[in-house]
Amino acid sequence: MFQHSSKLQYPVKVDKPDPQFAMLLQQAIGGVEGEIRVAMQYFFQAMGARGDDRIRDLLMSTATEELSHIEMLGHAVALNLEGAPVSYQEESAKDPIINAILGGANPRHLLSSGLSAMPVNANGVPFDMSHVYATGNIAADMMANVAAESGGRVLASRLYNWTSDKGMKDFLSFLIARDTYHQQQWLAVIEELGGLEKNLPIPNSTPEAHEAMEHSYYYLNTLTDKDAPMGRWNQGPSLDGRGEYSTRQKPEPEGQEPSLGKAREGSGAQKEQM
Amino acid sequence: MFQHSSKLQYPVKVDKPDPQFAMLLQQAIGGVEGEIRVAMQYFFQAMGARGDDRIRDLLMSTATEELSHIEMLGHAVALNLEGAPVSYQEESAKDPIINAILGGANPRHLLSSGLSAMPVNANGVPFDMSHVYATGNIAADMMANVAAESGGRVLASRLYNWTSDKGMKDFLSFLIARDTYHQQQWLAVIEELGGLEKNLPIPNSTPEAHEAMEHSYYYLNTLTDKDAPMGRWNQGPSLDGRGEYSTRQKPEPEGQEPSLGKAREGSGAQKEQM
Amino acid sequence: MFQHSSKLQYPVKVDKPDPQFAMLLQQAIGGVEGEIRVAMQYFFQAMGARGDDRIRDLLMSTATEELSHIEMLGHAVALNLEGAPVSYQEESAKDPIINAILGGANPRHLLSSGLSAMPVNANGVPFDMSHVYATGNIAADMMANVAAESGGRVLASRLYNWTSDKGMKDFLSFLIARDTYHQQQWLAVIEELGGLEKNLPIPNSTPEAHEAMEHSYYYLNTLTDKDAPMGRWNQGPSLDGRGEYSTRQKPEPEGQEPSLGKAREGSGAQKEQM
Amino acid sequence: MFQHSSKLQYPVKVDKPDPQFAMLLQQAIGGVEGEIRVAMQYFFQAMGARGDDRIRDLLMSTATEELSHIEMLGHAVALNLEGAPVSYQEESAKDPIINAILGGANPRHLLSSGLSAMPVNANGVPFDMSHVYATGNIAADMMANVAAESGGRVLASRLYNWTSDKGMKDFLSFLIARDTYHQQQWLAVIEELGGLEKNLPIPNSTPEAHEAMEHSYYYLNTLTDKDAPMGRWNQGPSLDGRGEYSTRQKPEPEGQEPSLGKAREGSGAQKEQM
Amino acid sequence: MFQHSSKLQYPVKVDKPDPQFAMLLQQAIGGVEGEIRVAMQYFFQAMGARGDDRIRDLLMSTATEELSHIEMLGHAVALNLEGAPVSYQEESAKDPIINAILGGANPRHLLSSGLSAMPVNANGVPFDMSHVYATGNIAADMMANVAAESGGRVLASRLYNWTSDKGMKDFLSFLIARDTYHQQQWLAVIEELGGLEKNLPIPNSTPEAHEAMEHSYYYLNTLTDKDAPMGRWNQGPSLDGRGEYSTRQKPEPEGQEPSLGKAREGSGAQKEQM
Amino acid sequence: MFQHSSKLQYPVKVDKPDPQFAMLLQQAIGGVEGEIRVAMQYFFQAMGARGDDRIRDLLMSTATEELSHIEMLGHAVALNLEGAPVSYQEESAKDPIINAILGGANPRHLLSSGLSAMPVNANGVPFDMSHVYATGNIAADMMANVAAESGGRVLASRLYNWTSDKGMKDFLSFLIARDTYHQQQWLAVIEELGGLEKNLPIPNSTPEAHEAMEHSYYYLNTLTDKDAPMGRWNQGPSLDGRGEYSTRQKPEPEGQEPSLGKAREGSGAQKEQM
Repeated sequence: MFQHSSKLQYPVKVDKPDPQFAMLLQQAIGGVEGEIRVAMQYFFQAMGARGDDRIRDLLMSTATEELSHIEMLGHAVALNLEGAPVSYQEESAKDPIINAILGGANPRHLLSSGLSAMPVNANGVPFDMSHVYATGNIAADMMANVAAESGGRVLASRLYNWTSDKGMKDFLSFLIARDTYHQQQWLAVIEELGGLEKNLPIPNSTPEAHEAMEHSYYYLNTLTDKDAPMGRWNQGPSLDGRGEYSTRQKPEPEGQEPSLGKAREGSGAQKEQM
Repeated sequence: MFQHSSKLQYPVKVDKPDPQFAMLLQQAIGGVEGEIRVAMQYFFQAMGARGDDRIRDLLMSTATEELSHIEMLGHAVALNLEGAPVSYQEESAKDPIINAILGGANPRHLLSSGLSAMPVNANGVPFDMSHVYATGNIAADMMANVAAESGGRVLASRLYNWTSDKGMKDFLSFLIARDTYHQQQWLAVIEELGGLEKNLPIPNSTPEAHEAMEHSYYYLNTLTDKDAPMGRWNQGPSLDGRGEYSTRQKPEPEGQEPSLGKAREGSGAQKEQM
Repeated sequence: MFQHSSKLQYPVKVDKPDPQFAMLLQQAIGGVEGEIRVAMQYFFQAMGARGDDRIRDLLMSTATEELSHIEMLGHAVALNLEGAPVSYQEESAKDPIINAILGGANPRHLLSSGLSAMPVNANGVPFDMSHVYATGNIAADMMANVAAESGGRVLASRLYNWTSDKGMKDFLSFLIARDTYHQQQWLAVIEELGGLEKNLPIPNSTPEAHEAMEHSYYYLNTLTDKDAPMGRWNQGPSLDGRGEYSTRQKPEPEGQEPSLGKAREGSGAQKEQM
Repeated sequence: MFQHSSKLQYPVKVDKPDPQFAMLLQQAIGGVEGEIRVAMQYFFQAMGARGDDRIRDLLMSTATEELSHIEMLGHAVALNLEGAPVSYQEESAKDPIINAILGGANPRHLLSSGLSAMPVNANGVPFDMSHVYATGNIAADMMANVAAESGGRVLASRLYNWTSDKGMKDFLSFLIARDTYHQQQWLAVIEELGGLEKNLPIPNSTPEAHEAMEHSYYYLNTLTDKDAPMGRWNQGPSLDGRGEYSTRQKPEPEGQEPSLGKAREGSGAQKEQM
Repeated sequence: MFQHSSKLQYPVKVDKPDPQFAMLLQQAIGGVEGEIRVAMQYFFQAMGARGDDRIRDLLMSTATEELSHIEMLGHAVALNLEGAPVSYQEESAKDPIINAILGGANPRHLLSSGLSAMPVNANGVPFDMSHVYATGNIAADMMANVAAESGGRVLASRLYNWTSDKGMKDFLSFLIARDTYHQQQWLAVIEELGGLEKNLPIPNSTPEAHEAMEHSYYYLNTLTDKDAPMGRWNQGPSLDGRGEYSTRQKPEPEGQEPSLGKAREGSGAQKEQM
Repeated sequence: MFQHSSKLQYPVKVDKPDPQFAMLLQQAIGGVEGEIRVAMQYFFQAMGARGDDRIRDLLMSTATEELSHIEMLGHAVALNLEGAPVSYQEESAKDPIINAILGGANPRHLLSSGLSAMPVNANGVPFDMSHVYATGNIAADMMANVAAESGGRVLASRLYNWTSDKGMKDFLSFLIARDTYHQQQWLAVIEELGGLEKNLPIPNSTPEAHEAMEHSYYYLNTLTDKDAPMGRWNQGPSLDGRGEYSTRQKPEPEGQEPSLGKAREGSGAQKEQM
């Protein structure tokens, strides 16, 4: 069960409101790199967690923190929209340059939300929940979480670079720090489960009899005019400790030519296909 | 530039067509764990790759292989739909049990595709390209790729468990093997870039001055009625070698109460809000 | 069965074409507050209406009017796109300020629609029909309709405020008026059904035995650091005449700790979860 | 800032797991009538609330309760999936009838989530955040909230009717009760703002000069072969106290025939259009 | 402006209600081959039509007819849902076979719509308006319309084959007939514009100077292990009368190797990419 | 099975990078008129092709070419983003005019992709695979392909008109040429199948007994205030050689008034509907 305390997790200040930056910040709310995604991803992973209860608690606890991040970002968007023009009569809209700047703003901040945050990304596309990755396999989920936090920290760093607002830079430096931790938090779960080698390949519960292992350790070089790039991926022992990497240069197909034959009567095809 | 050879990468056989299994296989084509996703993800990552050209080649080469996986799965779906009834007049549909089994099939395999594969998942939801994760940060992208291949191998293992068809089991054992390799291929790129520690936090190019590092290494325990779960995530040196993990139990908010004040005239609010 | 008459329901004039305003007007066509939504919502409610036939007629008749609103808005968008530049060679595009103004326009009005309206919102996101709310419960549907018309009139008022075009202001004042009526039209249906109290809670056909009524009349204050806000919602007799409002301050969970235990074999989890 | 307590708001028991009912319950999680929607809708309304702070607190507090409802439903789905077959080898899948029953289940509960809840509806379609209605106008938002809670209680009642599981019936009777309250909670906000008449038309801040009031109070009967249905909607004083309802039978268009003339050169049309 | 007459365009009867067929019929309402799509496509094409006013009238008139088709299908769905069980207590649901048959039904017909039609396809996926193809180029639009009507008639034929209900077969034979006509109606517009050759390539207003015409008439055979298939497409004069068809066997790339070089500082990449 | 060669199909040069044009080019990648769509459409049609194997080869071969078009466009987008500002500190962003120009750019090119292409359209909306039209009926599919290539050439022509960049004009003239060919390639398949008349109506395998042919050849004039527009569509022998075109002026409905009667108990309706 959730509770709520009325103050924000961290102070959110905006020195000079900027409707364009409000638009950019939306990516951190409703983008695939954003906070709705991680909040919901950890929440659903927690609800489906099986095995070590500590990991379930970790997931739920961090989902809860991410909800607080949405709250801070929502406030940051609203503060950046303070003073945005709502009509041509307003001073700011009379100036062609300022009007032009509105080009990069989200018109729906004015039209649809009354100058506040929306659950959309920086293009105004609503977040959709298909991005909640929760497989029920704890190692696969941790990898998805590290990926999400990596994308999140890349985004926060780009937002930090973009803005020159001191308040926003301070707030973003906090988000960058929390993303630093969360990347490692999920990697630490892998450690706690025995480390990467032991957990590979994911799922490690698939019996070897279910796997055509003669195809498990070669790099397939489908490039017709280049030799395979050489590196750790096709040289040395495999990271799961079960094999040795190699390369298949210019591979030939091993399968048949797929032909479906004639269409069946009554299947809606043209006569010429039957 | 792409070319195509007329045979499949690996043989695809179906011993006993099963329209329900055709529906399940769709997840491996058009699901977020599926092959369209990885093909397109590696393709777009390749087109945006900057830095070491070997990695670009690796991405493009593997994108190309994944296209061949779509092709095999598309054939597998069509083969499983051979003999599916197209009308109540057909023998198979007269049998109430068999008719009932159709419950788990995708009616659009009949209505929309003429008994062949579609770019949708096992619920019939079309794949959408927002799932192509390509940030331009090579480490973030590799993590997303490992996550995608982990989800893929989990899915292929579940499909393997579900079916009792010998041909399908053989085909899936091939996909399981390739997913084994691809998980490690992308992890090997991280090795080639200097290893995980050197690449953390992602992006490792963010200056420390942009990060509120006093918030970078603690686990925030937002659980009100439980102590923090203890583990590698809140004990010992950090995985990026820059700090020491700790815990914040029952944290207090550090920020202000967010209040937006009154609504502006002309902003479409109720009079009572102004 | 539908018919069409070749003239618009109300005159649509544009004094000075404005491609940016064309973009904003799209919200009234393809936004969730827009006319496609209400046209389709009333149409599907009509097709599923059971009970009093007058309400079905009302729904179908108003659906028909809303189709005419789409038609007027579509014309308004096209008129605002008259003269928008289609190349850098054109006079208007040579001026950097004017070019900049294009920033707030929808590039797809040029690229995809040939300077006419599209079924998208002001961010260019296509309308999707999941926003057609039609439950088969007449009171729930009327509430959804009042909500839709309220959002619609908020939007039309904001568009009116934004534009300084006399023709557009006249047209929008007509839409504002019709939204005024339609809000009340749907509320009047509730009156006709016996009034709000009689219709609450919705659905009023759910037997009291299906409801844990000891939980039906308290406000749950989940705020940890604040007392419950006091108001009509937690004081006095309930609006449905069945109870008395009260408050639960700082509620304790009544349920169990949800734990799923170990993962099953063959379910694709990691070994460590089993 | 959010916190979390480890127990559920209300006990969730399942007497006899039923994978089909797990599928149906998904509508209450990820459907437009579901809990993700109301949780996020109240959350975003709270973040954009302007005016009376009590209403902001009410919104945030109830958003927090709805998050706890997602949590209970997520557990209910997982409990209903206990024992669902993961392969043809399992006893339950050998029985053709039981296998057939799987027809109504969600295959992605097996393939994608590892037998737990997903943020999708009963068709497996992911929730998308465009359904978060938050206009910044408090009366419009309250109407959207009443509509959402009405849809929610209709759904919970239908789920209650469908299932014969005692545990599930008890749990659903709790959700039905909370929906009863929340419908009235939002209507009570309207009362607190001065009552319905004072708040109509929404937004009540739109000056009358912006409205073509001669079009504000008639029912437009677009039906060609029927007189207007008579009722409160076209008889008596208007609900906003500003006018008198009437009817326009078989209305004539008042506008022009919309004609766009010839296509412009360079606009991508056919020569024949120019 | 639209009007509505209270009777259906054509009689709709259902002899034996079938909830599974209700689900299949949804494809003809909310599928990409369905009636919402063509109604809206012709409507938006009409609103953007430039040039010959007859074609605009044709588009608007046919859009209006398609709205009437939605109305008939909506009724057909509701009639097929008559008697569908709403609880386990009902006779029909007690029978395991009948219950199993529900597997192929849409649970949201019960849960969300109260046993009536929804704007979704046969998988329950809502129609989205991105499928409204309207380019402003009359020839391109006619081709899209022929394609839509072809898909529509394929679908109606498959539905006809599937059902054994006499009423439904009669109704579908009407839809099949109208699709026959509409395919040809749009092809006849091409005739009226001077015929296919004159209208090719589309758009025919693109100056030849904008086209690298040395690449306009060869078939590119990207197949590595097969000669080009021979046919009208690579033999004889071109259908637009401007060239002669030929073949490029095993084509070599003509472009450069695309390499983006190093990542820029401050762009969020890894150090190793810079 | 697919292969890849490291060079582009055709040279891609950009003389003067333009972030706004990068945004416009996205329509040709991820728009419904774009290359992902045709690549995937031909690919899925090929996988479901039944009948003449030459057509399957044609489809697969052209799908492969379209993948190479995505690759070129992806490079074109990245080249246009060279030098786009990533912070306010950069020279270019200090200039208000240049900053304003960013209004028309896609902020996610900076925030999400690291200055490279994404699988989205010119509004930033991700491509979704529901636009892959593949019915299993070869004639319907060819019509969909002609429509797609027509939309594609309209788009490429508009992009050509918009840009003044010499490199981009050269590249677009190549795409225009290939679209010229592909339009005719698919029309040539119809020729090869015996020509248009023989293939109409689509599907031509539907028995005449399944069609209410008295409704197959009239234009239905639903316009109440205009006579039917006269043209090839309602005059002369039908294009399929089976009938004669005519007109129905001001048609009367032939069907019943659809009335669903009362709602059933337990179906979640209001009492007043029962």
